Amino acid sequence: MARKIVIIGAHAAGTDAASAARKTDRHAEITLITDQDVAGYSPCGIPFVIGGHIPSFEDLIVFPPSYYRMMKLDLRLKTKAKKIDVENKTVEIEGKEGKTEVLEYDSLILATGAYPFVPPIRGRDKKGVYTLRTLEDGRIVNKALEKAKSAVVIGAGLIGLEAAVSFVERGLKTTVVELLPQVLPAMLDRDMARLVQKHLEEEGINIITDSGVDEILGDDHVSGVSVAGEEIPADLVIVATGVRPNVQLARDAGIEIGETGGIKTNMRMETSVKDVYAAGDCAESVNMITKRPMASQLGTTAVRQGKVAGVNAAGGYAVFLGCLGSAVTKLLNLEIGVTGLTEYAAGRFGIETVVGSITSKTRADYYPGGKSIRVKIVVDKDTERIIGGQIIGGEAVTQRINALSFAIQKQMTIRELAKADTCYAPPVNETWEPMVLAAEVAIRKL
Amino acid sequence: MARKIVIIGAHAAGTDAASAARKTDRHAEITLITDQDVAGYSPCGIPFVIGGHIPSFEDLIVFPPSYYRMMKLDLRLKTKAKKIDVENKTVEIEGKEGKTEVLEYDSLILATGAYPFVPPIRGRDKKGVYTLRTLEDGRIVNKALEKAKSAVVIGAGLIGLEAAVSFVERGLKTTVVELLPQVLPAMLDRDMARLVQKHLEEEGINIITDSGVDEILGDDHVSGVSVAGEEIPADLVIVATGVRPNVQLARDAGIEIGETGGIKTNMRMETSVKDVYAAGDCAESVNMITKRPMASQLGTTAVRQGKVAGVNAAGGYAVFLGCLGSAVTKLLNLEIGVTGLTEYAAGRFGIETVVGSITSKTRADYYPGGKSIRVKIVVDKDTERIIGGQIIGGEAVTQRINALSFAIQKQMTIRELAKADTCYAPPVNETWEPMVLAAEVAIRKL
Repeated sequence: MARKIVIIGAHAAGTDAASAARKTDRHAEITLITDQDVAGYSPCGIPFVIGGHIPSFEDLIVFPPSYYRMMKLDLRLKTKAKKIDVENKTVEIEGKEGKTEVLEYDSLILATGAYPFVPPIRGRDKKGVYTLRTLEDGRIVNKALEKAKSAVVIGAGLIGLEAAVSFVERGLKTTVVELLPQVLPAMLDRDMARLVQKHLEEEGINIITDSGVDEILGDDHVSGVSVAGEEIPADLVIVATGVRPNVQLARDAGIEIGETGGIKTNMRMETSVKDVYAAGDCAESVNMITKRPMASQLGTTAVRQGKVAGVNAAGGYAVFLGCLGSAVTKLLNLEIGVTGLTEYAAGRFGIETVVGSITSKTRADYYPGGKSIRVKIVVDKDTERIIGGQIIGGEAVTQRINALSFAIQKQMTIRELAKADTCYAPPVNETWEPMVLAAEVAIRKL
Repeated sequence: MARKIVIIGAHAAGTDAASAARKTDRHAEITLITDQDVAGYSPCGIPFVIGGHIPSFEDLIVFPPSYYRMMKLDLRLKTKAKKIDVENKTVEIEGKEGKTEVLEYDSLILATGAYPFVPPIRGRDKKGVYTLRTLEDGRIVNKALEKAKSAVVIGAGLIGLEAAVSFVERGLKTTVVELLPQVLPAMLDRDMARLVQKHLEEEGINIITDSGVDEILGDDHVSGVSVAGEEIPADLVIVATGVRPNVQLARDAGIEIGETGGIKTNMRMETSVKDVYAAGDCAESVNMITKRPMASQLGTTAVRQGKVAGVNAAGGYAVFLGCLGSAVTKLLNLEIGVTGLTEYAAGRFGIETVVGSITSKTRADYYPGGKSIRVKIVVDKDTERIIGGQIIGGEAVTQRINALSFAIQKQMTIRELAKADTCYAPPVNETWEPMVLAAEVAIRKL
């Protein structure tokens, strides 16, 4: 009899899991369930549609319905998973018209994602207060922007800043309010974050750090926010204070939840219950450096975990080696990337560090059009290994982050980096690669 | 008494050696000798001045005279080193007005560079036939271009193609003639070279491979070249058929020359004679993968070797770990990069390989402006380690080459690359990094 695979979630993790399962077992019956009305889209693209870089939200659909048909995947839209019975290996679902059904599974993959966490700020239920997570959220915010002249974004993480940039690109007067003393607190050290903040402020975004929103103001509809006694007018408020994994279904089924709040998995992305796997934003896996649990919640992690879960769920063998949290974004004219641990995070894990930072250029000094680039490398003082990198620059950040990610994964020491064979041509790099220069700065402090 | 360091050569290797020596020994007497009338410039920039990207040749002077003064380096321009006496540790030099002098040294660094090799083609002495190596060459060719309407470049290596592109950018009808069956024969495998050739042909460069130039035609001045019986008109001919290390001085002094024709060095960049070092295009060092001698002849190698030689010559300790030959260029709208061994080169060294190639995009498929990118990865079938990478794309090639270079240096296996933690955002990468996809293709063939 054909193997039955049920996947709850049909975006990055779910769809990649389904694809990998199909490639592993040509005959499996694979069912994907999502409560949304569209599957297989890239939420990462939403701010760029709003900002006008991408023509429409439909463009973000990476896997159209035809893909699921071609791969013989039974995709159920607007369908909720109500209950998992791990004893009898069934999932109870509720379809479009409230019709319930019980699906049997041999393997189950939880790719339930995460939801935006909205802190209990007074007035958060007013009209004009949104989160920005799903395609539907994107459409609603985009519609609201047609009439809005000003916006406040609560939270200066990746999503918050990407949203703020898109609002400025649409001509709105935009303010970002962040509780912590810096922007991108989960991604960058404070010295690097300052550069980002400066750039955004120069481009017209008002950024208030070290401050919480006391209240969202207005009658029925939002009219502004109150921050430290000051009133900031706003026709639109976005709450971007982070996401939390969707684990209720798993928890109710007795599946173990880890210390980060995500579903605990092993290297095969298997949960505490046999034949149940988890992948993507709902899952917790391991940080490659600290070996501690980590909820990475990045699209790249989701597809890699999804693939491993899919192969294993279909009877194959695959392992996920862990996360480094390599991430990048582009905010106006700045690319910002990170991999591994920040200096701050390393300190919290008790790792004594040495750092090397340098500002250089992305092309030969004499070649027109070169952009400024700042590289910061974090080194474990004890082993002299590279454990983190942060880069901010006008171009060529992404692949430098990948290069440092490879270096970290292969336990390159900072002395090895300082001697690395790198490439150069006047239009595309300096003779001395900036990562190498940063390594030399770090070595002098060892 | 102050340590006396003499450096023959004052460009990439020589100047970086001098700088490193100065930082190592604040009191050393450091003398640099060059027979050219300008020191410390970047020859890599010459084609880009000719092509109009960089305003003037003067812009290529990375280390102006003030730098040498600031670093207390005694720079002697238009000065020839005539003879090295390794017994008495002296160098005989001939200065501007034919005045000779004997310099004593405690340490000597040979950074004599390389010269363009001109094969014995009939007519090669005609006016209008040039090589393109020094700033002076650049100025002469640039002057000749003012009247020229057509050009032939002999040799489709890096310099040849960069020159051809610069001529096309100046509006000349340009033909490249290459003896071997492909462009960039020392850099790329034939499958990858074909993409480059196609791009250049589409941009109007006439490329003839598999053909030698039988004769350079014309009376006093060149009028064209004869290739396989066909006459190609040309007002200007550039011979770009490779360079040879300048080793005569070393050879005459009894310093050992290696099998590649470069001055043999150990990991400290020391030659066969005590206290004599060599660095840059004149030196032979070791290929990191094959452990065989290699003359890398790249600017990046020159500065790294120069630095090691400078530290050691000044009484410090530094080692050069070897070359991978990581190189990149930009030809019109295409970046082309390589690191490690090509499939062909690996075969010649007797390494059985498996390769993975893939064409992808540089941004999310839905993000406007993404460029096509092709990644080829060469794997040692026995160890499953990555031993080479070639990338051609519209952008973001350089740092991917650096990433693969790091991977090779740290002996990353292709299976590790397939599981690597990479970063992504819609404007700067695809979710699945193309290097990772290429790795997966290779794994399927193992």
